[in-house]
Amino acid sequence: MKPALPIPTVERLFVYHKVLTNLLIEGTTHVFSYDLANRARNTAAQVRRDLMSAGCVGSSGKGYDIRSLLDRLSEVLEHGASRQVIVIGLGNIGKGLISYFSSPNNEFSILAAFDRDTRKTGKPFQECPCFPIADLEPFLEKNKVELAVLAVPGPVAQVLSDRLVMGGVRGILNFAPVRLAVPKWVHVEDNHITMMLKKVSYLAKLSPDQVKESLTTVG
Amino acid sequence: MKPALPIPTVERLFVYHKVLTNLLIEGTTHVFSYDLANRARNTAAQVRRDLMSAGCVGSSGKGYDIRSLLDRLSEVLEHGASRQVIVIGLGNIGKGLISYFSSPNNEFSILAAFDRDTRKTGKPFQECPCFPIADLEPFLEKNKVELAVLAVPGPVAQVLSDRLVMGGVRGILNFAPVRLAVPKWVHVEDNHITMMLKKVSYLAKLSPDQVKESLTTVG
Repeated sequence: MKPALPIPTVERLFVYHKVLTNLLIEGTTHVFSYDLANRARNTAAQVRRDLMSAGCVGSSGKGYDIRSLLDRLSEVLEHGASRQVIVIGLGNIGKGLISYFSSPNNEFSILAAFDRDTRKTGKPFQECPCFPIADLEPFLEKNKVELAVLAVPGPVAQVLSDRLVMGGVRGILNFAPVRLAVPKWVHVEDNHITMMLKKVSYLAKLSPDQVKESLTTVG
Repeated sequence: MKPALPIPTVERLFVYHKVLTNLLIEGTTHVFSYDLANRARNTAAQVRRDLMSAGCVGSSGKGYDIRSLLDRLSEVLEHGASRQVIVIGLGNIGKGLISYFSSPNNEFSILAAFDRDTRKTGKPFQECPCFPIADLEPFLEKNKVELAVLAVPGPVAQVLSDRLVMGGVRGILNFAPVRLAVPKWVHVEDNHITMMLKKVSYLAKLSPDQVKESLTTVG
């Protein structure tokens, strides 16, 4: 099996994939590393290094062929990756995510959603089956799902995370405003909307000079 | 005016604020830097440096008094920061966010939402007034809102971002899967849910050894 790419490289490759997809939609066929770097807020040297690590090569005269770059990046980033997800929590965010991921062209499919409130379960939400949380373990055992979105209140997030991990889940996208404790083979990605908005709010109140200073000072 | 704190410091201070709030709820009154560091996935030296930069002092015997730490952090992070937000886009994510932020105890208030689909506007959604997008400019002029959440499809995001910026918005929480071009005095925070889920999916498929390797290699 190939050695894994470092996580920061993977994050940048996802950004390149998004930028390149937009370029292709706009009708562009080739791109130079400096142009890709500019759009991905990065340096040309870093872009070339990252693409090389993913096995992509360009031509010095015409730059990279966008279509083959995208094919190669998809191969690297999506090979064997699971696209089946469950959602824990049928609150507003949970429902919003189910709708979001059930739109056409979305690469993920939500297999099922779970909630402790049985008034919300038993009937599908936008064609997504909704089960009481007690059904989580048998569902995981039967369906071997590896990805979960956790959209529950902070105080119950850790307990539910533990149940997901025990059931074989290896990746959690966490919307609860708490840091989850998980074994090292489980990856948690935190999406703290309120914290992001607070950060935007803090930075929005700074004067332009202060923003510049803040960006150039090393933390 | 005080010099601004560097953005990475600000991000860490927000994390400490969240951890400390949870500790206070649990009934803890004091905390040592190493314990706070552990919960915030950081080092004790970094925690002490960050707290000092925010003007917080602890006692060597008892650690930091959590309540006064929280008061001081709130003062630093929230002083003068706007808490009034508008939402652009009444799709699933937009509606989910309005519901999320309209819950009690939330520190932000959504003043209004806008959508180009007039079937969705004219009547409130969960008590939040919803206006056609043509009303954006007069609304911004009248209400001086500095923060916006952008929850629209990628292809229309830049145009709407331009209109927000022209109307005086200085901070945007962006859910559209595109990089927005904004003047340097405007701060954009990207929340790309699909990209986060792809990353979780990629990392979830790695074997434990590969995860370790990936985490220890410098990108």
